[in-house]
Amino acid sequence: MLILGVDPGLATTGYGLVRKTGEQLQGVDYGYIGTPANLPLPERLFIIFQDLKALIQKYLPDALAVEQLFFCKNIRTALQVGQARGAILTAAAHMGRPVYEYTPLQIKQTITGYGKADKKQVQQMVRMVLNLKEIPKPDDVADALAIAVSHIQTARWHQLLEKQE
Amino acid sequence: MLILGVDPGLATTGYGLVRKTGEQLQGVDYGYIGTPANLPLPERLFIIFQDLKALIQKYLPDALAVEQLFFCKNIRTALQVGQARGAILTAAAHMGRPVYEYTPLQIKQTITGYGKADKKQVQQMVRMVLNLKEIPKPDDVADALAIAVSHIQTARWHQLLEKQE
Repeated sequence: MLILGVDPGLATTGYGLVRKTGEQLQGVDYGYIGTPANLPLPERLFIIFQDLKALIQKYLPDALAVEQLFFCKNIRTALQVGQARGAILTAAAHMGRPVYEYTPLQIKQTITGYGKADKKQVQQMVRMVLNLKEIPKPDDVADALAIAVSHIQTARWHQLLEKQE
Repeated sequence: MLILGVDPGLATTGYGLVRKTGEQLQGVDYGYIGTPANLPLPERLFIIFQDLKALIQKYLPDALAVEQLFFCKNIRTALQVGQARGAILTAAAHMGRPVYEYTPLQIKQTITGYGKADKKQVQQMVRMVLNLKEIPKPDDVADALAIAVSHIQTARWHQLLEKQE
């Protein structure tokens, strides 16, 4: 199973590809798509769309796991994140890949076992699970890996539950 | 000059194509892109992206004029509208068309001459300017035409100002 985790943002969209082989998780590729603030908005969104499409084309992930927001600092931020999500989800549908969405709380709970963990604890867990020397920078990249790991763990639980039934 | 006005929304995205020939304005085509609520979000966004691309391909407008929001009822609405805008602006950039953005207040002011006009007055002005028998329904379609008309009038004022200098 290969999952592409995405942390959407207009200036910086983090991505993290995580492969599950047996019980082993591996960070296949991770980084971010940056868009220059001096470009017109449509061109910035098009960069996100194109770069994400290229990533999907290169790695052919089984699914995308994308951070879902219900709360934002303000309306302006919500509109901006929404626009970046629009470009990302359109690219996923364009490439025929299913998308799973998780709130930050769901991701925290899945990875650390409880919802009150801080960002740093989540990042440390992801670093250990993926056997990385350091927490990837910036935070958007670490968050994208966390989303992918969280999806894989959630999928595993669903499988276990199905077996029990 | 041919302008494609767009009023973004996840369920209903209104569009209106307005052509200016001499001093004459004409509504070339107008309607809306609807997406079924029971489809996954990425597929709904992809419908908006594809249908808008098809419209641009068919009519080759000189530019798009898109409603810009700074205020929303709530964060959830802002995220939804943002996602639809993301698909729309990505489609415009994909087709190499410039995008101009206007707030509802700017549109009102340009069309009626003052910012306190109500929605109905704006729609009536647009109906008269385009010589339509009735105000198109739903509101999203009338709004999209208003955005296109507003852009054309703004562009005309810019030309007049340039001539005076």
